[in-house]
Amino acid sequence: MTSPVQADDLAQFCRTVLTGVGADHETARDCTASMMHGSIHGVDSHGVRLLGHYAKALQGGRLNKAPKVEFTRTRAGSGMVNGDNAQGARATYAAMDHACDLAAEAGVGAVGITNSSHFGPAGAYAMRAAERGMLALVTCNSDSFVRLHDGAERFHGTNPLSITCPAPGNPWLLDMATSAVPYNRVELYRSTGTTLPEGVASDSTGADTTDPHVAEMLAPLGGMFGFKGAGLGGVAEVLSAVLTGMKLSPDIAPMGGPDFSTPRGMGAFVMALDPAAFAGAEVVQAGVTRYLELLRASPAQPGREVMAPGDREWAVAQGRRENGITLDPVTAASFAELAHALGIDPVG
Amino acid sequence: MTSPVQADDLAQFCRTVLTGVGADHETARDCTASMMHGSIHGVDSHGVRLLGHYAKALQGGRLNKAPKVEFTRTRAGSGMVNGDNAQGARATYAAMDHACDLAAEAGVGAVGITNSSHFGPAGAYAMRAAERGMLALVTCNSDSFVRLHDGAERFHGTNPLSITCPAPGNPWLLDMATSAVPYNRVELYRSTGTTLPEGVASDSTGADTTDPHVAEMLAPLGGMFGFKGAGLGGVAEVLSAVLTGMKLSPDIAPMGGPDFSTPRGMGAFVMALDPAAFAGAEVVQAGVTRYLELLRASPAQPGREVMAPGDREWAVAQGRRENGITLDPVTAASFAELAHALGIDPVG
Repeated sequence: MTSPVQADDLAQFCRTVLTGVGADHETARDCTASMMHGSIHGVDSHGVRLLGHYAKALQGGRLNKAPKVEFTRTRAGSGMVNGDNAQGARATYAAMDHACDLAAEAGVGAVGITNSSHFGPAGAYAMRAAERGMLALVTCNSDSFVRLHDGAERFHGTNPLSITCPAPGNPWLLDMATSAVPYNRVELYRSTGTTLPEGVASDSTGADTTDPHVAEMLAPLGGMFGFKGAGLGGVAEVLSAVLTGMKLSPDIAPMGGPDFSTPRGMGAFVMALDPAAFAGAEVVQAGVTRYLELLRASPAQPGREVMAPGDREWAVAQGRRENGITLDPVTAASFAELAHALGIDPVG
Repeated sequence: MTSPVQADDLAQFCRTVLTGVGADHETARDCTASMMHGSIHGVDSHGVRLLGHYAKALQGGRLNKAPKVEFTRTRAGSGMVNGDNAQGARATYAAMDHACDLAAEAGVGAVGITNSSHFGPAGAYAMRAAERGMLALVTCNSDSFVRLHDGAERFHGTNPLSITCPAPGNPWLLDMATSAVPYNRVELYRSTGTTLPEGVASDSTGADTTDPHVAEMLAPLGGMFGFKGAGLGGVAEVLSAVLTGMKLSPDIAPMGGPDFSTPRGMGAFVMALDPAAFAGAEVVQAGVTRYLELLRASPAQPGREVMAPGDREWAVAQGRRENGITLDPVTAASFAELAHALGIDPVG
């Protein structure tokens, strides 16, 4: 077990590694910011554990180390960002910045992203908009892991949806996969030898299984109402891939390789809404404040607690900002290797 | 059992009843169109069974019989529709028409709706946009029926989300409540004396129950991952109520009365996206066509079938357009009463 690392030190290490493998300043900055969003808020599946993956993709040529990310405004409220095979965070932060600029002018800004790649935690980009006082929606499709409702093969990716509404203090922030659980949960259960919850994974015939060793695919959110989860996975396809002309999940090369040299041709979609163009910033702030108050005061089942989307994350973030972030053993080993290979100071 | 009624005859009866209780032409037209969307596509919970409800709300003064529905364009891509306490379909069709006009010009159109009421099937308004070649999102909050995740009281409404992408032939059309099941499913199970599926309803303490007679509230979509379903219910609150300054679900008067004279102050939200402002109409059409082909060809579990959102509805619609629509006994009795009270020809 390694000792906790301060967030600033961890971020500095990530930037140094990314720069060390040849990424330009903007890529190192944005890729690090997105991973740190995950690691600070307890979304560890999309945190700094991905550093080695991104370094490999930059070194292999899957990701462009110095992309020319270009924005084209197509109409007053819409545009397209061509990522030029950038690391996903580089393209997506840029797109969200443009969406917020469009929304400040047109009331709403919708930006499709082309030629991007794995973007990590969707909530990172929604947060960017919330910090500018905007409501936002972020989505991306990804390589196939999730069966359809009643389906028997991997079809959709885990296809996240993140939606936010700015609020005094922390925003209301939903960031969810449209599968019941992420795939690395299955891997975690394999390594710990425990059984999976009912209805989250299937064997190779599509039948439910709680055995992580025979789990071949994830189930869509919703159990017997999984047509809803699969439909939400489809929302990610429609906005990220269909609207942008990029690859559908079944056509996307696996994130884990073996090919780390070919760009993956992934799309994504971001949107921002300016409260001032609707009921007005003050009315919206009063509304979300009352909503969060009512929600947090709503009675819970015995021994349980009700929380707003994001509440668990803000609590984790407070602890990790104060006490640092503990790396899991696999990530710590990967960091030691990266430091050694690049001749830089280790962290943790 | 009554015999099936042809769709045109049913629609004509609805318009005659609505006009008979004093609704203006636009209200009768739009209210009927939304209910017929439900009845033709097999979404009977939001079909013509609501006619008596709307007639009562128009007669009682909850709904304005001749509303002045006003659109204000706030920015290039955004606007607000003041429903003037119109029946919900009247305000929402108007808002979607404006959203499509905005999208045709600005690439995206987002319209908040104020002073509206129960709008029936969200998919009806998404379909309007799809018919104009637009992608769309429609949502509305509603009076409390659904507990929070781990919650022990009714909090959110069933808060639907509908998202569509136009496609050759029928569109890709998702229209879902963010609860696992609608409340009238509980009522149906009560009347038939059968047990509910696991995890869809709770007793007065919030604990799961399969007994429809002790079910006091619905569970959010997702079972043990109900924080996702509750979060999606929150999306409806944030867009429909917070962004518009209208009532949150816990503040909305019950749909079922007893007060049928006071307007309910409900909001809603619609958005349209023009494919021509993103990858282009042809690319989007090719993408959605390939997506639907891949999806429908994806292998199913033994004895099952995979379907795209909407596929079940298009099949039902074909049958009902050919063979007519059979009214359930309660609706048939209500129609007979309405016909008698208004001195018009009965239907069915």
